[in-house]
Amino acid sequence: MPARDNYHDTVRTALEKEGWKITADPYYLGFGRDVIAIDLAAERTIAAERDNQKIAVEIKSFNNPSILHDFHAALGQYLNYQMALETNEPTRVLYLALPNTTYARILERDLIQAALKRHNVRLLVYNTEQEVIEAWT
Amino acid sequence: MPARDNYHDTVRTALEKEGWKITADPYYLGFGRDVIAIDLAAERTIAAERDNQKIAVEIKSFNNPSILHDFHAALGQYLNYQMALETNEPTRVLYLALPNTTYARILERDLIQAALKRHNVRLLVYNTEQEVIEAWT
Repeated sequence: MPARDNYHDTVRTALEKEGWKITADPYYLGFGRDVIAIDLAAERTIAAERDNQKIAVEIKSFNNPSILHDFHAALGQYLNYQMALETNEPTRVLYLALPNTTYARILERDLIQAALKRHNVRLLVYNTEQEVIEAWT
Repeated sequence: MPARDNYHDTVRTALEKEGWKITADPYYLGFGRDVIAIDLAAERTIAAERDNQKIAVEIKSFNNPSILHDFHAALGQYLNYQMALETNEPTRVLYLALPNTTYARILERDLIQAALKRHNVRLLVYNTEQEVIEAWT
């Protein structure tokens, strides 16, 4: 099992409060002879739609003193997981989960904002105190 | 100055043996209010061409027990630096420098091979014993 982020349980709880059912923790995916482990998989049924919404969530807290350093790693991981999901389960949507405090810091970083836009990275921003989801981007 | 990879001087020497002139070490680039530092910039004049060849080189040795973990970080860094180069100096070509031993290991990793291809990552493979460049991809 891969190393868990400090906020793993916080994100699980926040998702469950919004009606998501956690279906895998971690969520293993094969890619050729490689296996990756995404932190969480979750599903939610919306009454007005026939299909389930399915997501995969990679949880990051950006504890490194260099936020750019943490972002390089998170971006590469997101893109590699995205590639594996497209092959295995293209309808499942990948999110990078960030604490609200980290999200506030990256809003001020031009390189990070440009990279998120260029690579269509979806973010799930969670509140670490209240254990709720503040935003989906 | 950013932390230097163990093989920083090895790559410098290998480039110089092939006629490259090191023009910056590190090579700073601005992007909005952010500044990044790529390990090396180098130039070489080919007699048959009018223009100089210009490269930027980010040096990685992948010392982490998990090669995928190291690759996530290297891929994100490469793509972010590539974006900054496109804005600042689009004719300079970015390479990720890897030791020959690491290159042999990533040839066997399907996820890494697919990601290198998808994102058009250029590699410079160096021999750590002989301090020469073995391949440009």
